[in-house]
Amino acid sequence: MNSAMNGRKREFSRSIRKGFTDTGKLPSGSWTDAQTATLDEPEHGLTQEVLDNTDVLIWWGHVAHQEVSDEIVNRVHQRVLQGMGLVVLHSGHMSKIFMKLMGTSCDLKWREAGEKERLWVMDPSHPIAEGIGEYIDLEQEEMYGAHFDVPAPESLIFVGWFEGGNVFPSGSTYRRGNGKIFISNPVMNLIQPITTKKSKE
Amino acid sequence: MNSAMNGRKREFSRSIRKGFTDTGKLPSGSWTDAQTATLDEPEHGLTQEVLDNTDVLIWWGHVAHQEVSDEIVNRVHQRVLQGMGLVVLHSGHMSKIFMKLMGTSCDLKWREAGEKERLWVMDPSHPIAEGIGEYIDLEQEEMYGAHFDVPAPESLIFVGWFEGGNVFPSGSTYRRGNGKIFISNPVMNLIQPITTKKSKE
Amino acid sequence: MNSAMNGRKREFSRSIRKGFTDTGKLPSGSWTDAQTATLDEPEHGLTQEVLDNTDVLIWWGHVAHQEVSDEIVNRVHQRVLQGMGLVVLHSGHMSKIFMKLMGTSCDLKWREAGEKERLWVMDPSHPIAEGIGEYIDLEQEEMYGAHFDVPAPESLIFVGWFEGGNVFPSGSTYRRGNGKIFISNPVMNLIQPITTKKSKE
Amino acid sequence: MNSAMNGRKREFSRSIRKGFTDTGKLPSGSWTDAQTATLDEPEHGLTQEVLDNTDVLIWWGHVAHQEVSDEIVNRVHQRVLQGMGLVVLHSGHMSKIFMKLMGTSCDLKWREAGEKERLWVMDPSHPIAEGIGEYIDLEQEEMYGAHFDVPAPESLIFVGWFEGGNVFPSGSTYRRGNGKIFISNPVMNLIQPITTKKSKE
Repeated sequence: MNSAMNGRKREFSRSIRKGFTDTGKLPSGSWTDAQTATLDEPEHGLTQEVLDNTDVLIWWGHVAHQEVSDEIVNRVHQRVLQGMGLVVLHSGHMSKIFMKLMGTSCDLKWREAGEKERLWVMDPSHPIAEGIGEYIDLEQEEMYGAHFDVPAPESLIFVGWFEGGNVFPSGSTYRRGNGKIFISNPVMNLIQPITTKKSKE
Repeated sequence: MNSAMNGRKREFSRSIRKGFTDTGKLPSGSWTDAQTATLDEPEHGLTQEVLDNTDVLIWWGHVAHQEVSDEIVNRVHQRVLQGMGLVVLHSGHMSKIFMKLMGTSCDLKWREAGEKERLWVMDPSHPIAEGIGEYIDLEQEEMYGAHFDVPAPESLIFVGWFEGGNVFPSGSTYRRGNGKIFISNPVMNLIQPITTKKSKE
Repeated sequence: MNSAMNGRKREFSRSIRKGFTDTGKLPSGSWTDAQTATLDEPEHGLTQEVLDNTDVLIWWGHVAHQEVSDEIVNRVHQRVLQGMGLVVLHSGHMSKIFMKLMGTSCDLKWREAGEKERLWVMDPSHPIAEGIGEYIDLEQEEMYGAHFDVPAPESLIFVGWFEGGNVFPSGSTYRRGNGKIFISNPVMNLIQPITTKKSKE
Repeated sequence: MNSAMNGRKREFSRSIRKGFTDTGKLPSGSWTDAQTATLDEPEHGLTQEVLDNTDVLIWWGHVAHQEVSDEIVNRVHQRVLQGMGLVVLHSGHMSKIFMKLMGTSCDLKWREAGEKERLWVMDPSHPIAEGIGEYIDLEQEEMYGAHFDVPAPESLIFVGWFEGGNVFPSGSTYRRGNGKIFISNPVMNLIQPITTKKSKE
């Protein structure tokens, strides 16, 4: 959901799919139905029809959160409460839709130092952590640090350890209405899985 | 927060104080600082100064939720996140402030039949349940029934049993930011404690 | 897990399977691997090999909880922590294995009056509640009532309303180690599905 | 609860009191009623009478967990369920009483390297975190690392960041029965507050 992404829809979509399939989470043929929606499209590409046919929406945004229309946010909110899954990546923690679902300020600490994040698995029995082992190293990460002003999660799956001395609840789940929400700090390992190193299980 | 209440400020305030002190929850002298704020006052009586000097805000509203200004709701929301307590009574579950803090539809079932509610204590070690015993009988209640579309609470303190066959999470706590929230279905036992019968402990 | 059940293994097993398949939760052919283990068998039928090959253990017991060997309870406990699912039915709330997993007294109120229980769905998006609608009526139930001394559950799926004026957290989930636990008050609707009436969805 | 502590009761008691009062959590005069109980005393010093008169029990133990009598553990367990508070320090995570209350293995990773732990506040509105600021630095700590096999806590108050690359849920609360439990990894800052540095708030 960022205007900088416009015109690069195919590449982004391909990259996300590659990220998921390279980490072995999904068979390579199963993402034939993934499509993108960007800020500059009419209705940001999120028409009622598109949402009605979406099982899981992956949301990424950064500097342009305020440009997203309240009407579309309300529409997405309704679909989450009806049961659509929502994955919120990284700086999407300040998106209107995530803040609306949380009811809090979603404030956190941050620092751009390209430092290492070690992502520890706190809840190894959760399906999202399946096959990951004890931790994943992300060699170059933007630091997001506690305190993170969100409600207590349903499951705290990952806690990130940062080289510079911070920690962060880097992957948590919530349920709102019939919808399941996953907020994930690290987005880069989805798009550039090549920079990550997995611990031995 | 209802225009019907305008001009009856003193009586309402006195009634709430009486409710709290009669149930033995508060010594009779400790509510000297309670005051009211109603819909028809400028800024609904909730100026920044009033909120800055409020430790706990008790919110009641009914048919006029949409008449409450978004600006004031945002102001109250900020104060809750900063640490002001919020007690939401009965039909306040559809107030803008409660919905904003929950992030869900807050829908429920309801029926006006003046039926009996037996309020069972689910969490006897919680301070809110102190001294109540096993249950309280409310002889004449409007029925609020599950399913109630809110996030999982921090503590589920009361579950109401209704004569007509329904159940309801009639008293729950939430934390949002630094603020503590208590949503209470029964309001009548606060205002008219004389109609309730306490179980023997 | 009751000696009264000995010699009736086949009938019980068939009845449980029938209960699950009649409620439409499982296709009729999918329970070919279900088997029983009873108190009077050597090691109560729960050898290490049996447990190692069990995905989900359904536990029912009543008056004979103290006759279950601590060694076998420890073995089952280990398997739950490793990831075996555990479904605890009705009076199994006082079984050694459930109490060991909870860490509390598991006390509750009860009354045998053959009264009606209306089982309300509190968490309609949970897979266990799928297809049930708003509630199920159980025409003849033993009453189990709050307060129930267990830790706060991961999900509170059902709350039971009893004709005689009680409520109960009749279906809840917990996670302990890698294991998922479901405690269900009503057992009769699994064994005798014919006595239940489903609400219209 | 360790035999090495025998004969040093007064010093230990004085040290804990000093730790609490130096951190400003308690006025210096308020711990007149603190007393110790050690492994080598009859009934480990935890007679029924002692427990009946204890509001909060602070438990520390290390290599001698197995020497603690099951009978005394059951007695302490009953008192916790009745409402006695329990603070479990550091290696007390493997004590019989904590494991009995949790129902899990309580396993974790550990390493003795005398490394720095930065204790981040995850839940700044919790009374236990009051006045601490964003974090506390503990200059010399034994590392305790995730994954920690315990149930999801009621509140996750601290997460520890360790110099060597680990994280740990270093302070969490639980409720079991009427009792409140606080498990705290760092014990040293209670006994030797002089080695800690507080962040500026």
